[in-house]
Amino acid sequence: MTRGFPPAEFEARVIRIQQGMARNGLGALLLTCEADIRYVTGFLTRFWESPTRPWFVVVPAEGAPIAVIPSIGAALMGTTWIRDIRTWPAPVPEDDGIALLAETLCEVGGPVGMPSHLESHLRMPLAHFDRLRQICDLRFGPDHGIVARARAIKSAAEVSRIERICATAGRAFDRVGEIAGQGVPLSHVFRDFQCLLLQEGADWVPYLAGGAGPDGYADVISPATDKALDGGDVLMLDTGAVFDGYFCDFDRNFAIGHVTRGGQSAHARLLDAVRAGHDAARPGARACDLWRAMAQVVGSDAQDGRLGHGLGTQLTEGLSLIAADETVLIPGMVLTLEPAVKTGQGRIMVHEEVIVITTDGARQITPEAPAQIPVL
Amino acid sequence: MTRGFPPAEFEARVIRIQQGMARNGLGALLLTCEADIRYVTGFLTRFWESPTRPWFVVVPAEGAPIAVIPSIGAALMGTTWIRDIRTWPAPVPEDDGIALLAETLCEVGGPVGMPSHLESHLRMPLAHFDRLRQICDLRFGPDHGIVARARAIKSAAEVSRIERICATAGRAFDRVGEIAGQGVPLSHVFRDFQCLLLQEGADWVPYLAGGAGPDGYADVISPATDKALDGGDVLMLDTGAVFDGYFCDFDRNFAIGHVTRGGQSAHARLLDAVRAGHDAARPGARACDLWRAMAQVVGSDAQDGRLGHGLGTQLTEGLSLIAADETVLIPGMVLTLEPAVKTGQGRIMVHEEVIVITTDGARQITPEAPAQIPVL
Repeated sequence: MTRGFPPAEFEARVIRIQQGMARNGLGALLLTCEADIRYVTGFLTRFWESPTRPWFVVVPAEGAPIAVIPSIGAALMGTTWIRDIRTWPAPVPEDDGIALLAETLCEVGGPVGMPSHLESHLRMPLAHFDRLRQICDLRFGPDHGIVARARAIKSAAEVSRIERICATAGRAFDRVGEIAGQGVPLSHVFRDFQCLLLQEGADWVPYLAGGAGPDGYADVISPATDKALDGGDVLMLDTGAVFDGYFCDFDRNFAIGHVTRGGQSAHARLLDAVRAGHDAARPGARACDLWRAMAQVVGSDAQDGRLGHGLGTQLTEGLSLIAADETVLIPGMVLTLEPAVKTGQGRIMVHEEVIVITTDGARQITPEAPAQIPVL
Repeated sequence: MTRGFPPAEFEARVIRIQQGMARNGLGALLLTCEADIRYVTGFLTRFWESPTRPWFVVVPAEGAPIAVIPSIGAALMGTTWIRDIRTWPAPVPEDDGIALLAETLCEVGGPVGMPSHLESHLRMPLAHFDRLRQICDLRFGPDHGIVARARAIKSAAEVSRIERICATAGRAFDRVGEIAGQGVPLSHVFRDFQCLLLQEGADWVPYLAGGAGPDGYADVISPATDKALDGGDVLMLDTGAVFDGYFCDFDRNFAIGHVTRGGQSAHARLLDAVRAGHDAARPGARACDLWRAMAQVVGSDAQDGRLGHGLGTQLTEGLSLIAADETVLIPGMVLTLEPAVKTGQGRIMVHEEVIVITTDGARQITPEAPAQIPVL
């Protein structure tokens, strides 16, 4: 699979965004976060791990985006379809790109929309943003969710990348027996599972969570402890690995030594819930409809009630499968179905799959999960 | 090495921050970013990879911090020294924790300081921050760099973690010959080097960069291509791996097949520059003094002129070794020395080491680099 996308794909993305800008009377969009900037430019680097430098992309009402970036990124940005690249030698304490950004925005014209909604943030120092608004005589306001809505609908090329990394992780899950078993510390399993993901073809592993315990685990966001796996434990591994900038996000449960009746029946209910969510997923259905279909099988009191979410250039993005989210599903949306059940005092089990909405329903793009919990 | 820190360490951190708050007349600090929140609470999770949920910690003028967080994090936060944990079932579109945060801030009292300087950002939706300021009759302003300055001075326990992950990465660098050589695609080297880091004991690998080419590489932030390594190439790998939440950040260069005279002499100059930076590093010296000492050896026109930076809970944090940074060095500061030289048309070579400032100078905490470029 070739990496990256042709300019036509970026043009189509930007035109979709610009149609939204026109509807909302915006003269420019100001983007500061990795996923938004990559979506319109193709700028892919792990350098975002460094918080030191801000990065700006301005989307005008017409034409290609303008990059206003630290000069350390000029060479890489120059390999994308972006031609108007303005740089400064960041970090510059007295003016870290603000004058250059202000000049660019004034040239493009406002009002300036910025992602401001749930899940977004402004990745630049607050004091610098205040200064920008002072020196730039333009109106700054929300982007009305334009960028997030565009990103939510994936092209076939984007879906193929998510599919590929799901298949990669699927092969790694098939090999968990090589690294996990009674007596192995959970921290070793986490470490070695990341290796399996890399060996099977992941570019990197931004996210790995999991847990282990009798009939389930206490939560799913804690780092691994050195506690050894014990017979009767259920081990869960949940990964967000990446290929070409696109995430998978799904998990698998395993029984250590033997499977208990409670673990087996919880697992069966989770698979039933995923099936119910999948069956409810079609264009026109709402996020809350999928939530309801799954909640009817498992309830919604475990794991905070969110039973899935959008997925793509971020581990979680866009819609939430919760009662309050009435987002209407559209072909090309990729989402996870992630039911959880309480299995005992303070313990839960979680199962997660990835689906893509198609014209006539939904298609699972994670490999089929075993009907019974595999025993290691 | 045990993981985490005793409550006394967090108490000491918070008291140092509260002394700064008192000097600046702040009634509360509002923290929203991973590194700041972890610094005062010990809350360590990879779940920050998900952008969906905001997380808030309020540091009062006296006493322990208060966590205002999504309920999905309650169990993990409950394992830290934090006792006052207030939760809401995020995500809640109509009010994602803002009422709860406002109530907490009003109870604690203002003025409210927030990290606002170079390198910081506010990790919450802009629209929600506007709403918070509307419903909360308190003054919001900068934190005057209090948190960043506290974080910059590491305790012995913090330094030991950075030292450990540096040693881990050093062992992985010693094994690069197992995975790299003529004909191997750079993308495979990146993938396999992450595995080596994990095998040697890294918890995870948030950052890996590098490059390869005759006598150097074009830039150091691009992802790996599938281009095969060729005889005469210089291969550079630069990693930010993590142990217990603390980063290493250093690189090593390797020659493929044979080393050219240009590559060898550039490498020698880089080591000279690191030595000059190290010799200049002592309490009372300024960041710009180290920059000047290194720039005299290698110039400062390659790699944007930044010749090093602070390091700790983030890949890059705090001071910059640039001409404009007059930060005075204090024992306990950990920083990288990262000189770069131009080696040809659009090509550079970079070398990077980590040092800690001690009472009488500086100590290198990365393993000693080979005097000659190793030939693979």
